[in-house]
Amino acid sequence: MDIREKPIGVFDSGLGGLTVVKEILSHLPNENIIFFGDTGRVPYGGRSKETIIQYVKDDMEFLLSHDVKAVVIACNTADSMAKEEVEKLYNVPVVGVVEPAAKKAAATSKNGRIGVIGTKATVRSGAYVKAISSFSPSAEVFAAACPLLVPLVEEGRFRKGDPVPEIVLREYLEPLKEKNVDTLILGCTHYPLLHDIVSEIMPDVNIICSGPASTEALIATLERDSLLSRSDNAGRIRYFVSDSPDSFARNGSIFIGREIHGSVSLVNF
Amino acid sequence: MDIREKPIGVFDSGLGGLTVVKEILSHLPNENIIFFGDTGRVPYGGRSKETIIQYVKDDMEFLLSHDVKAVVIACNTADSMAKEEVEKLYNVPVVGVVEPAAKKAAATSKNGRIGVIGTKATVRSGAYVKAISSFSPSAEVFAAACPLLVPLVEEGRFRKGDPVPEIVLREYLEPLKEKNVDTLILGCTHYPLLHDIVSEIMPDVNIICSGPASTEALIATLERDSLLSRSDNAGRIRYFVSDSPDSFARNGSIFIGREIHGSVSLVNF
Repeated sequence: MDIREKPIGVFDSGLGGLTVVKEILSHLPNENIIFFGDTGRVPYGGRSKETIIQYVKDDMEFLLSHDVKAVVIACNTADSMAKEEVEKLYNVPVVGVVEPAAKKAAATSKNGRIGVIGTKATVRSGAYVKAISSFSPSAEVFAAACPLLVPLVEEGRFRKGDPVPEIVLREYLEPLKEKNVDTLILGCTHYPLLHDIVSEIMPDVNIICSGPASTEALIATLERDSLLSRSDNAGRIRYFVSDSPDSFARNGSIFIGREIHGSVSLVNF
Repeated sequence: MDIREKPIGVFDSGLGGLTVVKEILSHLPNENIIFFGDTGRVPYGGRSKETIIQYVKDDMEFLLSHDVKAVVIACNTADSMAKEEVEKLYNVPVVGVVEPAAKKAAATSKNGRIGVIGTKATVRSGAYVKAISSFSPSAEVFAAACPLLVPLVEEGRFRKGDPVPEIVLREYLEPLKEKNVDTLILGCTHYPLLHDIVSEIMPDVNIICSGPASTEALIATLERDSLLSRSDNAGRIRYFVSDSPDSFARNGSIFIGREIHGSVSLVNF
């Protein structure tokens, strides 16, 4: 098989990565995609580095068993904690979410003051601080761990007018507002659903999401390695999860912005 | 070794089961305890029955490898979804949390209207409805799934005066208040920490927690099988977790009501 027609592999700890798939689909509609959500072990954001690396290896090996031509780590926690480790292990181009968003934030910020919100693990890793510094050594980065946001989004609590996410986000964002950041990275693939509340709380701030940034990086990587599909047909997505395919199909559509057609398959590790 | 001096095994998906250990310690101070918290795969409450059964088998086998004389399933989700399945598999007395709390609620309620709050999996299982009916066939049971409570408690958001758990609990409890329940089972071992907010919202309701109920059942089982320790020495607790021993030691003390002394060991499945 022509390597260009092989699928792109995308994985996340759960549903959030579908916000990245949504962007990939809109820019690369002819690519086939294999998506894996590790719903049997979600969330990754509170776990240790060692555990996250082990889980990411399992995720990578699952995608590689489907003969993917490239992998997108559509999970900030996994990318922050494990990308360096796994890139060395597997012979496939790997695109993350952290570096692309950091690059975009560094190019966007006027005052050099950049905020990042993410899971505990993402913030603890320091990956965003390191990546932003590599693009803009003088930038000051202010990061806030927001452990309640993933559970809130997973429960559908992300709409303007809902006091619970509004109170919680105000608490988390207040220290970043005080630091006068002009750019804010939503450093978790669940957070784009909270975009409206965030922009209400910080109306003058540029908000950077993982999806568009990592899709740009993916396109650049596929072009560089001559891996872009030549097909004119609409690409096919296949979904795999490690628990509850039905609930994935039901709840995933809000993340990907379309119905999840076809079957979602269960994977047993 | 005298079987009576073997340890009692207790497991939970994470930290919540320590509220049960707290009760066991206060009533059976001379027993040795092996506690296992599956912190690498917490939470169980949103997962499928098949996955929960697999995880509970792993938990049981870990405790049995430490030669325990009895097992307490200190997790309502695990007990609701997997107890019937695992009781058949292992040759050890198993005490859960659901049946003891159901029995106590049936004996306590005057108007026969009993509320239960728990995780999605616990409510979906119907285990409380079934158990309460077995003790009080005419009782009416009203169950509400409360998926945000475990993340809130794990983040330390359980104190009176904190608007977030107060708003969320008011939402979850409103339908049960409307049903005029006079007894409410806190059907998750995390929820005792929310006792003060719950009793403020439902001041005239009898609140039943897993810890005291299951400890009574444990004592009855150990007496029945002549397994109570004869030792006069203070019992020893050993803690095992599947991720982040340090964070377990740091965060567990609020659940168990004492410092977690000594080492917490990491288990790799």
